[in-house]
Amino acid sequence: MSSKISKEGIASARKREVRKLLKDLGLRIYSDINEGVFPEINFPSRSVRNIVYDERLKQYILGKTSVRRSTHNIKHIRPFTQLIWLAFFVKKLIEQGKTSTLRDVFYSAQAYDMEFMDQSESDEIITDLEALLSKAREDFNVYPEERSAIFGDLTIEYTVPGYEGKRLNLASHPDGYLIGPSLSTADFIDTSAEMVLAVEKGGLFTRFVEEKVHNRYKALIIDTAGQPPRSTRYMLRRLNQELGLSVYILTDGDVYGEHIAMVIISGSANAAHLRELTVPSGKWIGVWGSDIKKYKLPSDPLTDMDIKRIYELKKDPRYKGGIWQRELDFFLKIRKKSELEAFAKYGLTTISDKYLPEKLEIAKSL
Amino acid sequence: MSSKISKEGIASARKREVRKLLKDLGLRIYSDINEGVFPEINFPSRSVRNIVYDERLKQYILGKTSVRRSTHNIKHIRPFTQLIWLAFFVKKLIEQGKTSTLRDVFYSAQAYDMEFMDQSESDEIITDLEALLSKAREDFNVYPEERSAIFGDLTIEYTVPGYEGKRLNLASHPDGYLIGPSLSTADFIDTSAEMVLAVEKGGLFTRFVEEKVHNRYKALIIDTAGQPPRSTRYMLRRLNQELGLSVYILTDGDVYGEHIAMVIISGSANAAHLRELTVPSGKWIGVWGSDIKKYKLPSDPLTDMDIKRIYELKKDPRYKGGIWQRELDFFLKIRKKSELEAFAKYGLTTISDKYLPEKLEIAKSL
Repeated sequence: MSSKISKEGIASARKREVRKLLKDLGLRIYSDINEGVFPEINFPSRSVRNIVYDERLKQYILGKTSVRRSTHNIKHIRPFTQLIWLAFFVKKLIEQGKTSTLRDVFYSAQAYDMEFMDQSESDEIITDLEALLSKAREDFNVYPEERSAIFGDLTIEYTVPGYEGKRLNLASHPDGYLIGPSLSTADFIDTSAEMVLAVEKGGLFTRFVEEKVHNRYKALIIDTAGQPPRSTRYMLRRLNQELGLSVYILTDGDVYGEHIAMVIISGSANAAHLRELTVPSGKWIGVWGSDIKKYKLPSDPLTDMDIKRIYELKKDPRYKGGIWQRELDFFLKIRKKSELEAFAKYGLTTISDKYLPEKLEIAKSL
Repeated sequence: MSSKISKEGIASARKREVRKLLKDLGLRIYSDINEGVFPEINFPSRSVRNIVYDERLKQYILGKTSVRRSTHNIKHIRPFTQLIWLAFFVKKLIEQGKTSTLRDVFYSAQAYDMEFMDQSESDEIITDLEALLSKAREDFNVYPEERSAIFGDLTIEYTVPGYEGKRLNLASHPDGYLIGPSLSTADFIDTSAEMVLAVEKGGLFTRFVEEKVHNRYKALIIDTAGQPPRSTRYMLRRLNQELGLSVYILTDGDVYGEHIAMVIISGSANAAHLRELTVPSGKWIGVWGSDIKKYKLPSDPLTDMDIKRIYELKKDPRYKGGIWQRELDFFLKIRKKSELEAFAKYGLTTISDKYLPEKLEIAKSL
């Protein structure tokens, strides 16, 4: 154990910041009303035309266009009111130490006679609030339904009600710990890990735990369970930023696996208004198209849908150059894909004993 | 803490039993060969005609028809060899303390030049071995990829390598513990719980933890994450049989939710060859069709697919009588369905403070 001590209290400080942002928003509206001014709010537009690719950040960001919602304009009153109600609702969530899902928010609105046509309308307003505060919805206690998992030597300290100050080491349950609200908001206390291995599949997660990959490579292991939920992307970023851990991503050898890695590293266009869901220094270490050939992996032919998806991504600016474009081309050339499990042809531990160390070595020069 | 002490070592004893079954199978074949007899094996047929509904057990079981695989018959040599290879492979898994997925088994076969056309052929042989040994594949260390989660006051003791004898209390991480190989094979040591609440959704799982449902109702909480993986059904059965806990199931108020509850309680036709994945005394406590009306829940209209599925299940013998048929009919009558989150219309805690205790009371007379 021990070696790296995180700045204690980062998660708690973050919570206080979000509460203050919400409170300030309310105070500003009250003050406008007191002064006889129609309250209004401004936030960056998320329209397709305002989503631009930033070459330096290597991610999608929002441009300069902003949206104004003024209570002076009768057409704006509905979305304005919805947004202010949402700010009120999540402030209450935070104060009571409760969390909620997107779906819960939609139904909760009905308790206040706040009208949303359907969940897509309430989801939209939640994203507006994210853009307004520049905070992810997880910061205001709205969490996804799906959960992925983590395992390894990391001691955390909870900040959620009833568990404040309690500590837990994430190597104590070998099946893994769910990454939910309590873990997302916990402070990191201590770790001996030097890297994070994010893997796409539960089977490989278990294999790595069984093969003691966490000890042999001083790694935390995360099962993203396919495309990771946002709270897991946020956790990956925290591990990278707060603890300085390198993040390596291992996926199936196909276009969908490559895209899972890309979204962890560079984020998505949908979340162009947020900066806290990316790991720009993350590395996709495989399974590459070229690994299928190099390691003589059992493979399946690409389907028409695979090929269509490859051509789509080839046009995406995030995929310009580097291994990204090269491996898309390689998949196209060999017309094959392989799963992580394909290594089992050479024994269940080939992936941990041979492939992983070779790819970690190659990753140094990426 | 404390109150119920489980018979310690049940999980370990079970492991020894499976190893013995596998060893005996091998010995029998060796002995046949030594005596100049063509080895053969017999196990219950899983053909549709041999799957019958048992009124007393209230589940599908296999009839009297059996399958014979004799090495004397050239057509049988392929599946016979595949099955014996599988028995060899899983015995090695168990001895080395490793686990595997269905997919891993398919690829691992290639390491031994054991031919399977595709994964469906290897899956089939795995099910043959289940039928032959009357044990679930989890007993021979083949686990599903998906994981669900558990939370509450239950102290377990691991039996997996590296963790033998270590204990953990499952109330220490409020986001929940994954139910994987280590938890499935752990011995139950101590609990203050009197019931298990199995819920269909991660959001409600978190809500229940936040509302301290585990303390207020002395409950373990399980997130089945939709239709539960088999290892979770097996865990539910163990909690019921070994600790005597009542199992209550809470799902969305629709035909798919009702079927999740049914499969936990009565099992599926696919697993008619197994007895260890059911909880015959389990109760489905909602959301019933009649609750939609009684609790004035926000609802959505049934789709054509919902209606088709209801008519299918109405013909299923498991749905004859009781609340099962009654609630199918109620869904049809009102042509509506509601999700668990719909209770949020009346406040986020209505489901834990009002609905849950009322339904637990009603469950006593079910």
